[in-house]
Amino acid sequence: MSNQFKKEYIVVAQNASGRNMNVPLYRFIGEKPGPKVYIQSSIHGAEVQGNVVIYHLIQRLKQMPICGEVILVPNCNPVGTNIKAGEYTLGRFDPVNGTNWNRGYFYDESLIQAFAQSVQDDESIPQIKQRFRQQIKDILAEKLEESWGIGLAQRLNLKLQQLAFDADFVLDLHNGPVSTRHIYVPEYAQSSASLFNIPHVILIPNKFAGALDEATFCPWWTLQTLLSDKRHKPIEFGVEAFTLEMGSQEVISFTDGEYDANSILSYLNAKGCLVKSDVYPQTMRRVATYLKNYKVLYTQQGGMVEYLAKPGELIKQGQPLAKLLNVDELDTPNATELILAQCDLIPILHFPSASILSGTQLYKCFTHYFEL
Amino acid sequence: MSNQFKKEYIVVAQNASGRNMNVPLYRFIGEKPGPKVYIQSSIHGAEVQGNVVIYHLIQRLKQMPICGEVILVPNCNPVGTNIKAGEYTLGRFDPVNGTNWNRGYFYDESLIQAFAQSVQDDESIPQIKQRFRQQIKDILAEKLEESWGIGLAQRLNLKLQQLAFDADFVLDLHNGPVSTRHIYVPEYAQSSASLFNIPHVILIPNKFAGALDEATFCPWWTLQTLLSDKRHKPIEFGVEAFTLEMGSQEVISFTDGEYDANSILSYLNAKGCLVKSDVYPQTMRRVATYLKNYKVLYTQQGGMVEYLAKPGELIKQGQPLAKLLNVDELDTPNATELILAQCDLIPILHFPSASILSGTQLYKCFTHYFEL
Amino acid sequence: MSNQFKKEYIVVAQNASGRNMNVPLYRFIGEKPGPKVYIQSSIHGAEVQGNVVIYHLIQRLKQMPICGEVILVPNCNPVGTNIKAGEYTLGRFDPVNGTNWNRGYFYDESLIQAFAQSVQDDESIPQIKQRFRQQIKDILAEKLEESWGIGLAQRLNLKLQQLAFDADFVLDLHNGPVSTRHIYVPEYAQSSASLFNIPHVILIPNKFAGALDEATFCPWWTLQTLLSDKRHKPIEFGVEAFTLEMGSQEVISFTDGEYDANSILSYLNAKGCLVKSDVYPQTMRRVATYLKNYKVLYTQQGGMVEYLAKPGELIKQGQPLAKLLNVDELDTPNATELILAQCDLIPILHFPSASILSGTQLYKCFTHYFEL
Amino acid sequence: MSNQFKKEYIVVAQNASGRNMNVPLYRFIGEKPGPKVYIQSSIHGAEVQGNVVIYHLIQRLKQMPICGEVILVPNCNPVGTNIKAGEYTLGRFDPVNGTNWNRGYFYDESLIQAFAQSVQDDESIPQIKQRFRQQIKDILAEKLEESWGIGLAQRLNLKLQQLAFDADFVLDLHNGPVSTRHIYVPEYAQSSASLFNIPHVILIPNKFAGALDEATFCPWWTLQTLLSDKRHKPIEFGVEAFTLEMGSQEVISFTDGEYDANSILSYLNAKGCLVKSDVYPQTMRRVATYLKNYKVLYTQQGGMVEYLAKPGELIKQGQPLAKLLNVDELDTPNATELILAQCDLIPILHFPSASILSGTQLYKCFTHYFEL
Repeated sequence: MSNQFKKEYIVVAQNASGRNMNVPLYRFIGEKPGPKVYIQSSIHGAEVQGNVVIYHLIQRLKQMPICGEVILVPNCNPVGTNIKAGEYTLGRFDPVNGTNWNRGYFYDESLIQAFAQSVQDDESIPQIKQRFRQQIKDILAEKLEESWGIGLAQRLNLKLQQLAFDADFVLDLHNGPVSTRHIYVPEYAQSSASLFNIPHVILIPNKFAGALDEATFCPWWTLQTLLSDKRHKPIEFGVEAFTLEMGSQEVISFTDGEYDANSILSYLNAKGCLVKSDVYPQTMRRVATYLKNYKVLYTQQGGMVEYLAKPGELIKQGQPLAKLLNVDELDTPNATELILAQCDLIPILHFPSASILSGTQLYKCFTHYFEL
Repeated sequence: MSNQFKKEYIVVAQNASGRNMNVPLYRFIGEKPGPKVYIQSSIHGAEVQGNVVIYHLIQRLKQMPICGEVILVPNCNPVGTNIKAGEYTLGRFDPVNGTNWNRGYFYDESLIQAFAQSVQDDESIPQIKQRFRQQIKDILAEKLEESWGIGLAQRLNLKLQQLAFDADFVLDLHNGPVSTRHIYVPEYAQSSASLFNIPHVILIPNKFAGALDEATFCPWWTLQTLLSDKRHKPIEFGVEAFTLEMGSQEVISFTDGEYDANSILSYLNAKGCLVKSDVYPQTMRRVATYLKNYKVLYTQQGGMVEYLAKPGELIKQGQPLAKLLNVDELDTPNATELILAQCDLIPILHFPSASILSGTQLYKCFTHYFEL
Repeated sequence: MSNQFKKEYIVVAQNASGRNMNVPLYRFIGEKPGPKVYIQSSIHGAEVQGNVVIYHLIQRLKQMPICGEVILVPNCNPVGTNIKAGEYTLGRFDPVNGTNWNRGYFYDESLIQAFAQSVQDDESIPQIKQRFRQQIKDILAEKLEESWGIGLAQRLNLKLQQLAFDADFVLDLHNGPVSTRHIYVPEYAQSSASLFNIPHVILIPNKFAGALDEATFCPWWTLQTLLSDKRHKPIEFGVEAFTLEMGSQEVISFTDGEYDANSILSYLNAKGCLVKSDVYPQTMRRVATYLKNYKVLYTQQGGMVEYLAKPGELIKQGQPLAKLLNVDELDTPNATELILAQCDLIPILHFPSASILSGTQLYKCFTHYFEL
Repeated sequence: MSNQFKKEYIVVAQNASGRNMNVPLYRFIGEKPGPKVYIQSSIHGAEVQGNVVIYHLIQRLKQMPICGEVILVPNCNPVGTNIKAGEYTLGRFDPVNGTNWNRGYFYDESLIQAFAQSVQDDESIPQIKQRFRQQIKDILAEKLEESWGIGLAQRLNLKLQQLAFDADFVLDLHNGPVSTRHIYVPEYAQSSASLFNIPHVILIPNKFAGALDEATFCPWWTLQTLLSDKRHKPIEFGVEAFTLEMGSQEVISFTDGEYDANSILSYLNAKGCLVKSDVYPQTMRRVATYLKNYKVLYTQQGGMVEYLAKPGELIKQGQPLAKLLNVDELDTPNATELILAQCDLIPILHFPSASILSGTQLYKCFTHYFEL
């Protein structure tokens, strides 16, 4: 028994040379029916490790019978991947206008409310899912044909969302600047957090802020809340979406990629996407915090900084996070300054350059965290 | 009788050399009491013509007695002004994270609603204004002292907003890419549109989208709506704020600057800011459209483009806007392609480069426009 | 009688997505034998007008029988064309390392001297040409296969040089920042300057500084000088190469492109590349200067600048070139400062942004110019 | 006995806000006479570790009596330090024109030859040194006053060269991309290589390629060669200059900085700059190669790369240096490709991003190296 495999290319843009820019799409279709899975990587051009993870997933899925379908779109942003600014990749935003490449997905709450009202009492969950999907996909198709056109990032996002909204499980593979592994999990799917081998979990509310995971789960979450109210019983669509941050940007590691491919397979296995697989999540310490307690520490000063606290370390209140050098004061006691932790915290990521202006995101930190 | 004059510098950031970055502030104080005026320029670093306008305003205000106070802050973004990328100025967004320099001002609708409820029946308009201003300014001060810090663009914006929110009349001087003169006017202040010598007027609703003009007028508009309801009679605070787009970015012209200084003085004169001045608005054709009819035309294709329609020209449906060259098809009929107007329109600005990707903002156009 | 036409694509690089990047090549082969012509455009990505010129040349050459061969390579730098930094194209240098895209061509004087010594007394001009070409082309091929690899710009340059070195007449189509038409002409080919409809001519010596025109004519110039000495009589290979600067970067104009296509055709006609054509150079005033008298005016100050002197205007000593605004001095006599011409000159181009640091190339000017 | 200490600021540029940009200069003057030392850091804006080294040097020199004078200029490039492009610092070249910030120093061989001829037979070494210094410094001053102005990078370089050319020992503190410690040493000063605690030494010939070390030692080397010939006996001026590459760019480490400060002090002690100090070079393995054998490995392909060979490791011929991922081939055997060492080598540094185009400097490697 083996999976069917297809490779396609999706055109998402055209460059100034007048050439089409496309992204590769790898599709595995199982002999058995089952859920649909959509996995993409590198929507932010410098966050390339997900491509390695997808490489390992493809090697594994060649050997591993699945139920349903798995779609993998590595390197899904052909513009962002190829914009260099100095030796690094300016991959987080459109260099023309600053638009974040991960903020142009479609979401419209009023639509969901209207849809909820349209649901018949006797409509089954699969019927509702199918009809809701179709409606959203129709809107996406319509937006892509908008007569005045749409922006580059938005087109890319909607093209990808067409694939993602068809899926039951959506994984968007990212990296932090200098970062330890962490994952964004919608609060309603908290129990799924332990199905990945990822030690740091951010629990996010039902609030659309533009990213693919939210664009995927917010509609279903809202719909299931409205319908549960309407039918006076819990309704579940079983759709989940996550942003996985698998270490640091600008680097790849094949060994780490294997670890993360395994982590993803153990999630997929638990969700019934694999036929008789023995990939299970590791027993490990998993620490979570709510999004509101995932704090950004901005610098008050400009200067050069040594990052003393490493991502993933437990830091106590009052311990130093960073040491700042001021080149104008090298002969005075103000030459260096320690930046201290305001409370107990776990730094999850830090800025990737020693040179900072005031108002730089120095660290992002778990505060008020707890064990899962 | 003459104005008092003061020059100050406000620190808004610190750079990687550890040096303070400040912006100049020019303040004229009249002998007579009167409204407060706040004018800034170049929050977007490449939009430099406003600095010339302020130069001319200063020359004029040295000779021209005012009522109240006029604060002028040219070149208000010391970071954006100084980030070059190639020969041009990468001034619209923070090069680190893509944040638009004109989107970090503070606005919180729930606060205004709470304030409206706190207003006593016998509280006078000046009392309300004074108390509301103080409350917002307290919040701005608090945000600037946020213990985890705030982002670079936000700090810059809040520092400027501290000055702006104190004023009755706020003018934010911008430029378009390649652009004709236009102005954003809140719908409630439509009659003021004719006080400037600006031929194209965009009427905007009471919806905060991040810019300084909105951050200034939305709170007052919302408050006056709530209080008018409460007191069953129209309440007016007389606060107005505008974004003036004075031609194209990346160029300055002293002659044009004199024209725009005159335009601003005629507005200020009409608003009682000048003592016995004879500067009045020109008799001219002024065309307006609602924001929803101010349409962006995005390219479907990438390539090289000649901009056939000039900013300010009346274009009929079906007339060509631009002609696109595709370098891969120079020997075929697809070598060039005309982009046509979908309806009658006035192009207000176009993209400043001939080289475009798909999804580029080619033109912004007035549709369904009407004469004022 | 008509030309044979072929279209090809040459791979010059591979991007971070692992995709080949190629450039289009249009080739016309006449029924009659004759010289080889090589024309490329947009080696600097923002200098796009040459693509329009090549478009017009192709339309004309479809109808116009030629002698020999004409190769046209528009948009010859697929990397430079597609690197945006803000709305503009960062096309002059590799964003990774600052390497100018037009400085990596091959030239080795010692090789030419060795070759000159190898020339037999009875070797005919065509034999010498053919053997010298082959030797240089062998070296280019070898360099492209260098076992440690070569840099991106260098590979692009050598690939194009393989085509150019095969040609008798080489035209490299560029644009200045904000610029009037001008052309770089090797001193030995000064008489050819009047075959183009270009009013400003820079006469350059036999000194390789990295550009394609020099990489083409310097070897032949050197060789013909050495052989003329050796054989005690003037030797001429009839190879010429020019850099044409056809107005400003970041804009295209189909009308201007037609003018320039005509100008190039009148040169080609004079050189025997066209069969019975009646395209002749215009009677016009042509002004020349030696490269050493083509002066760069650098700013001493930073600030915002209005360009008062337009490219192509005759400016007398002491007349103003530019007016500088200093935003910190708007209330003092130092608010503005005039930058004056140090001698009689013709500004040929100026910097394309009003915002300048000290040490900016404000203007490039003809001094000590004379009529041709 | 203690040193005299002075702090100054040198204006090197003016920015678009019209503000002076200056660099700090720390000067220690010993009670005893002795050599002059000049140390600068961060001419390339992202190479910031040298600032930490200078910080430690200043702490040490406060306590440590010196002979002669030590000038320290940290963060010597205020433009390069403050140009961000994304989160990183675009510090190696001027963002306007691509000019490397470390290539605009002055050198003119013909001048040295003329000077050598002007030397009288009875002129003493100190007299010659003093006169030669003065002549070069006069030229630098003249160039800075050039009536048509000079470029931004060149002005910065000449201002720093004015300080450097006055010194006997010049250290230019740099960092590689991802790099191990290495040092550029002029061949004539090879014995000094062992006075630093730096394991990798590149021996460079007497050829000016634009950098500060060359601009410093080439004139003296050339002059001493010419005079030795003239006087038929070895002449030595005792001037030395080095580029120290102290690990990776974009990071600082206070601990590493202490190590490198110690290394520099042991060199200075050996050169008689310190009064009775006991800082001596470590006993360690030092490996050297000639510049011609310091090879750049360019990529043939584009893609994503894992850097398998770490800087400083000994790699045998045939061993893998890097593993490349091609996202279009994830299902085929071409998904990954190993890049192998062509010969025994030591990788000294590698490119700092996983995303590469073809023609990227992947590694710089010692080949044909030997122990010192």
